[in-house]
Amino acid sequence: MRIARNIPELRVLLKTLRKQGGRIGFVPTMGYLHEGHASLIQHCRARCDSVVASIFVNPTQFGPDEDLNHYPHDLDRDQALCLNQGVTILFIPEATELYTTGFSTFIDPGPMGQVLCGSYRPGHFRGVATVVAKLFSIVQPDLAFFGQKDLQQAAILRRMVWDLNLPIELVVAPTIREHDGLAMSSRNAYLSIGERMRALCISRALAAATNAFQKGVRSATELVDTAKSLLGDLDELQYCELVDALTMDTIEGQVKRLAGLCVAGKIGRARLIDNVLLSEAADPTRLLSLVAIPD
Amino acid sequence: MRIARNIPELRVLLKTLRKQGGRIGFVPTMGYLHEGHASLIQHCRARCDSVVASIFVNPTQFGPDEDLNHYPHDLDRDQALCLNQGVTILFIPEATELYTTGFSTFIDPGPMGQVLCGSYRPGHFRGVATVVAKLFSIVQPDLAFFGQKDLQQAAILRRMVWDLNLPIELVVAPTIREHDGLAMSSRNAYLSIGERMRALCISRALAAATNAFQKGVRSATELVDTAKSLLGDLDELQYCELVDALTMDTIEGQVKRLAGLCVAGKIGRARLIDNVLLSEAADPTRLLSLVAIPD
Repeated sequence: MRIARNIPELRVLLKTLRKQGGRIGFVPTMGYLHEGHASLIQHCRARCDSVVASIFVNPTQFGPDEDLNHYPHDLDRDQALCLNQGVTILFIPEATELYTTGFSTFIDPGPMGQVLCGSYRPGHFRGVATVVAKLFSIVQPDLAFFGQKDLQQAAILRRMVWDLNLPIELVVAPTIREHDGLAMSSRNAYLSIGERMRALCISRALAAATNAFQKGVRSATELVDTAKSLLGDLDELQYCELVDALTMDTIEGQVKRLAGLCVAGKIGRARLIDNVLLSEAADPTRLLSLVAIPD
Repeated sequence: MRIARNIPELRVLLKTLRKQGGRIGFVPTMGYLHEGHASLIQHCRARCDSVVASIFVNPTQFGPDEDLNHYPHDLDRDQALCLNQGVTILFIPEATELYTTGFSTFIDPGPMGQVLCGSYRPGHFRGVATVVAKLFSIVQPDLAFFGQKDLQQAAILRRMVWDLNLPIELVVAPTIREHDGLAMSSRNAYLSIGERMRALCISRALAAATNAFQKGVRSATELVDTAKSLLGDLDELQYCELVDALTMDTIEGQVKRLAGLCVAGKIGRARLIDNVLLSEAADPTRLLSLVAIPD
């Protein structure tokens, strides 16, 4: 594994890689890697000849009162994980290189970035879309991999790739969970043992709604209420909504197409999100991916 | 010259071109081509092995009360000009292909897009930046060529290329003028003979300011007033401002770095813009270009 700490170093490594002619996959992360990231790297290895991973805690996607300066980090452990998972190039840029003086161009994801997490984190998805577009330009991967856990992010990036004609195949991989169901997240590190127990209500609520869906319930209200009734252990429920998983439009009435039941809430100082796809498709996560533009 | 009327057709032609390995230059236009566009194509030919030109009247850069539906067009003449100028591929997409249902991702150029023309044309530069980013993704040129006449556009696109790490060299070429000084513009077609005469006040005003600058005047107020005093033939003066040509920040006090004196106004139904660079550099237009990222 080679490590690039700035764009010129990365460019040299990528040039060599490109000469070999294989498919380059990209896994952008904010570090403090867990099995969810490891799974993305594995998906990437399965589809690509080489894996570029990045670790960058992107300042433009954090609000002024958010946890930018406290975001968990352990670069040694992250590097070991990347090495063990077979990452080819690990890119660890500095914020000053990605955001130079006078930086002013942002990608605006439009209405999709305003709902759900976007209404609690103004500007968050603008920052996400911008940094991902930048990293895509820098790495120029053939495929890029994102986790279903950040469903709204996946939907927004999918739309961005489509709208901006980016020559990239976007792959969304299933959420990886702890043995008891808690969705893997770097922010789980914020939880005390008691909070960690209470956090389980989210995955249980989503599992209950999934169970109801599998038993034939198609009423959006009923599915949402099933989940909501189990979310009492949260210190703050921010939202529990059933949305079209590709557009983030609220589903009213009956679930028909690919639906995402999305939850966000706070436990202690941790803001946690999770979701499940409600669909009759065999592998619904796969439907979130955007297949390559044919050559 | 080959013509591509949609993205898949273009992709096939580009693939062949890329196999040849040379540098690909790109000249995006809105059609109704004139000697200014011809000059851009010539600059492109001088620097590149092949020239991709596009003709696309981009709806997202027009306001609801603007001239989208009346924008002049003459595709036969445009094709002949491109052929004569040695264009390799002419790309003429449809709006429905570039803006599919649910399109929602825009490039926001920030404060630079709000001033000058931006304050008279809300959303204009967002539309420009977005369509240029899209065309860059589709064509993937090594170099792209823009005219100095649209100075604010050039500055915004330069910043966009830099901010989004686009792997493109942006070249700005000098404004081409009619023999009497009027800056070439597709919108000059809107002018009656009388209006055409009155329109000359713009280039005369800019020439007077240039003359004052060359005689040593460095006061922003004096330079602006020199130009303004000659703009009485406009039906409406929208702005006459001295700005930093790279940032569009208003210059107050003394002109030091690369300054642009920018004018916009209306004559009849034509909205005309023009500018001159005030600089001690030998070839100031050249300073607007963004050189290639070294490999």
